Amino acid sequence: MNIRTSLIFLFSLLLFTALYAGSQGTADEPPVSEDSQACIDCHNMVTPGIVRDWQTSRHSKNTLSTALGKDELSRRVSITKPPENIADSVAIGCAECHMLNPDNHTDNFEHFGYAINVVVSPTDCKTCHPAEVDEYHDTKKAFAYSNLKSNPVFNLLVETSTSTYDYSEGTFSSHITGHSQNETCLACHGTDVKVAGMKTIESDLGEIEVPNLTNWPNMGVGRLNPDGSKGACTSCHPRHSFDIAIARSPYTCGQCHLEPDVPAFNVYKESKHGNIFTVKHKEWDMKAVPWKVGIDFTAPTCATCHTSLVTDGDGTVIAERSHDFGSRVWVRIFGLIYSHPQTKSGNTSIIKNDDGLPLPTTFTNGKASAFLIDEKEQTARKEKMTNVCGSCHGSTWIDGHFEKFDKTIASTDSMTLAATKVMLDVWRDKIENNENPFDEPLELKWVNQWLFYANSIRSASAMIGPDYATFKNGWWQIVKNLKDIEDYYQLKKGNKTE
Amino acid sequence: MNIRTSLIFLFSLLLFTALYAGSQGTADEPPVSEDSQACIDCHNMVTPGIVRDWQTSRHSKNTLSTALGKDELSRRVSITKPPENIADSVAIGCAECHMLNPDNHTDNFEHFGYAINVVVSPTDCKTCHPAEVDEYHDTKKAFAYSNLKSNPVFNLLVETSTSTYDYSEGTFSSHITGHSQNETCLACHGTDVKVAGMKTIESDLGEIEVPNLTNWPNMGVGRLNPDGSKGACTSCHPRHSFDIAIARSPYTCGQCHLEPDVPAFNVYKESKHGNIFTVKHKEWDMKAVPWKVGIDFTAPTCATCHTSLVTDGDGTVIAERSHDFGSRVWVRIFGLIYSHPQTKSGNTSIIKNDDGLPLPTTFTNGKASAFLIDEKEQTARKEKMTNVCGSCHGSTWIDGHFEKFDKTIASTDSMTLAATKVMLDVWRDKIENNENPFDEPLELKWVNQWLFYANSIRSASAMIGPDYATFKNGWWQIVKNLKDIEDYYQLKKGNKTE
Amino acid sequence: MNIRTSLIFLFSLLLFTALYAGSQGTADEPPVSEDSQACIDCHNMVTPGIVRDWQTSRHSKNTLSTALGKDELSRRVSITKPPENIADSVAIGCAECHMLNPDNHTDNFEHFGYAINVVVSPTDCKTCHPAEVDEYHDTKKAFAYSNLKSNPVFNLLVETSTSTYDYSEGTFSSHITGHSQNETCLACHGTDVKVAGMKTIESDLGEIEVPNLTNWPNMGVGRLNPDGSKGACTSCHPRHSFDIAIARSPYTCGQCHLEPDVPAFNVYKESKHGNIFTVKHKEWDMKAVPWKVGIDFTAPTCATCHTSLVTDGDGTVIAERSHDFGSRVWVRIFGLIYSHPQTKSGNTSIIKNDDGLPLPTTFTNGKASAFLIDEKEQTARKEKMTNVCGSCHGSTWIDGHFEKFDKTIASTDSMTLAATKVMLDVWRDKIENNENPFDEPLELKWVNQWLFYANSIRSASAMIGPDYATFKNGWWQIVKNLKDIEDYYQLKKGNKTE
Repeated sequence: MNIRTSLIFLFSLLLFTALYAGSQGTADEPPVSEDSQACIDCHNMVTPGIVRDWQTSRHSKNTLSTALGKDELSRRVSITKPPENIADSVAIGCAECHMLNPDNHTDNFEHFGYAINVVVSPTDCKTCHPAEVDEYHDTKKAFAYSNLKSNPVFNLLVETSTSTYDYSEGTFSSHITGHSQNETCLACHGTDVKVAGMKTIESDLGEIEVPNLTNWPNMGVGRLNPDGSKGACTSCHPRHSFDIAIARSPYTCGQCHLEPDVPAFNVYKESKHGNIFTVKHKEWDMKAVPWKVGIDFTAPTCATCHTSLVTDGDGTVIAERSHDFGSRVWVRIFGLIYSHPQTKSGNTSIIKNDDGLPLPTTFTNGKASAFLIDEKEQTARKEKMTNVCGSCHGSTWIDGHFEKFDKTIASTDSMTLAATKVMLDVWRDKIENNENPFDEPLELKWVNQWLFYANSIRSASAMIGPDYATFKNGWWQIVKNLKDIEDYYQLKKGNKTE
Repeated sequence: MNIRTSLIFLFSLLLFTALYAGSQGTADEPPVSEDSQACIDCHNMVTPGIVRDWQTSRHSKNTLSTALGKDELSRRVSITKPPENIADSVAIGCAECHMLNPDNHTDNFEHFGYAINVVVSPTDCKTCHPAEVDEYHDTKKAFAYSNLKSNPVFNLLVETSTSTYDYSEGTFSSHITGHSQNETCLACHGTDVKVAGMKTIESDLGEIEVPNLTNWPNMGVGRLNPDGSKGACTSCHPRHSFDIAIARSPYTCGQCHLEPDVPAFNVYKESKHGNIFTVKHKEWDMKAVPWKVGIDFTAPTCATCHTSLVTDGDGTVIAERSHDFGSRVWVRIFGLIYSHPQTKSGNTSIIKNDDGLPLPTTFTNGKASAFLIDEKEQTARKEKMTNVCGSCHGSTWIDGHFEKFDKTIASTDSMTLAATKVMLDVWRDKIENNENPFDEPLELKWVNQWLFYANSIRSASAMIGPDYATFKNGWWQIVKNLKDIEDYYQLKKGNKTE
Repeated sequence: MNIRTSLIFLFSLLLFTALYAGSQGTADEPPVSEDSQACIDCHNMVTPGIVRDWQTSRHSKNTLSTALGKDELSRRVSITKPPENIADSVAIGCAECHMLNPDNHTDNFEHFGYAINVVVSPTDCKTCHPAEVDEYHDTKKAFAYSNLKSNPVFNLLVETSTSTYDYSEGTFSSHITGHSQNETCLACHGTDVKVAGMKTIESDLGEIEVPNLTNWPNMGVGRLNPDGSKGACTSCHPRHSFDIAIARSPYTCGQCHLEPDVPAFNVYKESKHGNIFTVKHKEWDMKAVPWKVGIDFTAPTCATCHTSLVTDGDGTVIAERSHDFGSRVWVRIFGLIYSHPQTKSGNTSIIKNDDGLPLPTTFTNGKASAFLIDEKEQTARKEKMTNVCGSCHGSTWIDGHFEKFDKTIASTDSMTLAATKVMLDVWRDKIENNENPFDEPLELKWVNQWLFYANSIRSASAMIGPDYATFKNGWWQIVKNLKDIEDYYQLKKGNKTE
């Protein structure tokens, strides 16, 4: 046997030993704490699926000691020493998460002798993952609830388009409905989860008392939690496997970033990147940390470009991990109502533009520049993204791509402006009433112009999904809609003047 | 023996063991009956793909004896002893299915000395799977053909919207076309397959005579078969692997339950359940019977909640298997034109509502309660579903979810009612003519209100796919469409009065 | 050792054997040429992803000698002896492709001492794959750029629907924009890539000079390349794994053949073929050459029916490989504006119909027969496709299927004709102006009639995806749109006459 053969033989024997040990009864799996074992004993019968899912997770197979024992690039916790409130020699089980920080939790309740929080929050996750929670803390996602509901313009749009309507004697009356907001905008943006006292429910062990949560269930990215924190890590790291392969898969982002308003997932699927992912990811390592380009994967997912720690095969860092999903993005192509440089703060309801409104652009595309990142920051972010592109593409390719993208941003904004100019005539002629600009037929077509068509074209440009720039809410629709608005305006005007 | 010799010896031994085991494996495959072997001898050349597909199936690898030898929960046949017309020691091959019950089959024909049925029907499958066929027998799926074609209201909708139209001198003339019905509504609902004599076709072995089938091919769930039975098991268990993994995959249901009218598949894909399925099902056991939650899978597919036998890891039954797809469903959210409690019978053409029409609700949402399941049955079915949810979710979650769902059912019905009230004005003013309520522009928008938008919102609510409640045929469209109907009605009225 | 331990021990030893054999295999990888090694030495740092992707490819693992050593059916090159300009004992690396035919390449440039082409073209690929490039050479795909841009009718459609518009004092002004064409129509059809001098870019090794390419990047199927050739093999065989599994996967075709205009991919996904593919292809061999029906796969993808070399399990050829994607297709169901027999040449801009226009049919569906394949050729192509169907389906099934298809082709053309007749009245009455038939509201609805709805129904008929024939751009929309056109025409007429 040469050296190489000997090594392989040794490796095989080691593997045998490992498997043998495994078969002996999970000797290497970390012990479960007494508290968690108590949870499992009941919940293995009551909610067996969630217990078993946790048993497949890294949380069940690691202790803080083993997690901290990894080299820095491979580490999945961002603490440097064990926190005080979790033992470092047990698996991260039910109790380790659901019993944290009880004093913060208005949803903490006595449950068969244990003080349990219903809703594990980012503040709880921060115990072991502080860097990730801090990255997220001031992002638009973290503020996704208040950015809608505390902004009177957006809130009017939300309420108008999710109200029920009655019709009688030629007139509509409307009723604002909370449940429809929870199932639409707030399903992704997050709801305001509060504890409204306790309630009694039937269980297999008789009647029990549990907190009565409002606006629950919800997994929105900007959820307001009963402990006062914002966000839901489970949006992308769902319960209870917390498998990083899920967070890195485009289907996860695709739960909210979907056509017609934010067709990022659809565009990705149609792109060459998505094409290669779909065919080849079965052969990839979707769980490796760090994520090595060309080794672990050969085409990017959403996470690769926007979030993940990416290195080359030798461990040289190409992109740092960040849960600030805007950190590699300089322009906001999701136009409201025009595209614009990213906002400085994730809290966009503090913006005041020259119309006096909390919007990043005025009605005719004047930028609220004081609230937007400057050119230097834009350049820095673009360089981060370009660095990721450069893993596979040369400069000529990348430059050509972003040159098209820049032009498309300008073109689509001009198509929104044209539609807005028609609307100014519509409102001037009192064909429709702009007191609420979101509740009449031409107004709703105008919203489609920027919310659906301009957004779709820009997303398609950013990630090269041609159909979403063409016939699928693309140029075909943005031109047709503009013509339709003007034509229908003429008809309404003709009808009115009789 | 030195190390090297030992290894070579060991390796040889292993190789022998592997080969020996392999040869034993082949010996274990059951014999093919003489009749089936005759089919295979020719069809291995004529239609090799379908023969090979069968060879991958459990039908080719089991006899009735081995199938009946399994413990009850794992058994895939629902007989307790072998039927008389299939030998219990041969594989379930071509002849075992295609030569069953020849006297029932008007499509039975002489084929190279064998009496063959072209269309294997549920009655044939019932030979070994009687429970499954009985469960299916009175379902809406089984009646899917006649529920459309024997109901004058629905038949008018079908015929009006699949006719060809000619235009001349300002007037349309229409022509009802059977082939377009076969490719649209009846592709999913099933066609009426009859034998219209025999016809001669060319084959590799010269001219042969075969039955001339009408409305064929078709795999619709309510297909009328030449043996007088209803349904097509192959809709979900396609030929000839009959792989249960296909039936359990959402893609199968998604062939018919698709947006815009029944977006169940789309909503599922967008949901967290679908998200987890898409990423993780590669690691699941999609073929295990029974299907063990948390062990074989960690998030539900359509089948999990609506059909499959589900147990926990210890074999405790969480949900019984049923091919009555309504058995765990209490409300029919596919509104025609409003949602309503499930019908008592799968045959909905027998209903008579207070308008005198065979519809479960009246035009203004009066329920035809005599034909609908009562509250007790609704509660019983909801409990079955809740039990499935409870595999992973606690009561607070489940209760909150269904509370939203109930409110959304009411809200969407009110949005249909509002549109209907506008239409009453439209028809009163003779702007459009309700003799056929499915053939003029405002009428067609009104159909969209319930068939697309209300259905989409309710599906999205049921399975948590927010986009289908919001911008993708959701609240945005249901509100916009209502305003558009009224606005366009005013224009047409203005135009008419000149 | 108990039985379990023994088994684990045995498994480990087997693994050892496998790994040992594997380590020997590494030694068999072909040497990389000196030129290619120079590329890799830098690009492993500069663009590591693309280098690693190539390392997974067959190009990196074969020489021309090993490629030519295979039996004819399994061979992936279509030469019979090594070409003169590639060594036959090295891997097909960077230099072997990017340094070919430098005299043809206006994009050839000096790059660290090497003369490199930026854009590898079909002419370059032809060095080893001449049959494939020849098959492609006269197809509609190869002419996809000029068929749009050299045809004044289609070019008007392209320019009108991708222009930006301004609105002022009740009037629109428009501006033709190249970048929006590049991101829409030409993203799939291909752009005209030319070298506009050199430019200086920053690299990790300082400033370097590279060719300044116009309309780049692009991967369209009819791309005009800097060496004068047409096409981009990388559209379907993407860089740099060139994995045949990608080309054979429906997701690749689905990058361009997407709803609403060409919903082939969507229809396939909804079909039973797509259903089986989605669930089962994990168990298939997507890379086997030849592709053996029933052995390597049990349901077709796009490639199976339209392109691939398909054999039965014994190696009998069912369909020859062809990169002329029309070779098994007799009718063009992508109607412009009606369906018609396939064109004789892939260059469709040479057609002249009885209206004097370069379109395969006249405005009222007169065929330009001199430019279309005759009945004999149609029959021959249909027989090729029928042969593929016959791998799994009997004659009755196939005949019934194509009978429906033929009727649907006629029906949908009649629905386009009806809409066209209404438009003739619209233009006669000067309600809209047909000087440009693609720029006013009724005209745009008329385009939808054939481009979206008729095409969708025919695709759904061809591949059995019922929703795309029904409610998803199907009969529901084609009927509704026809009624809408006529109704809105009456409104505009009423408004005008005041």
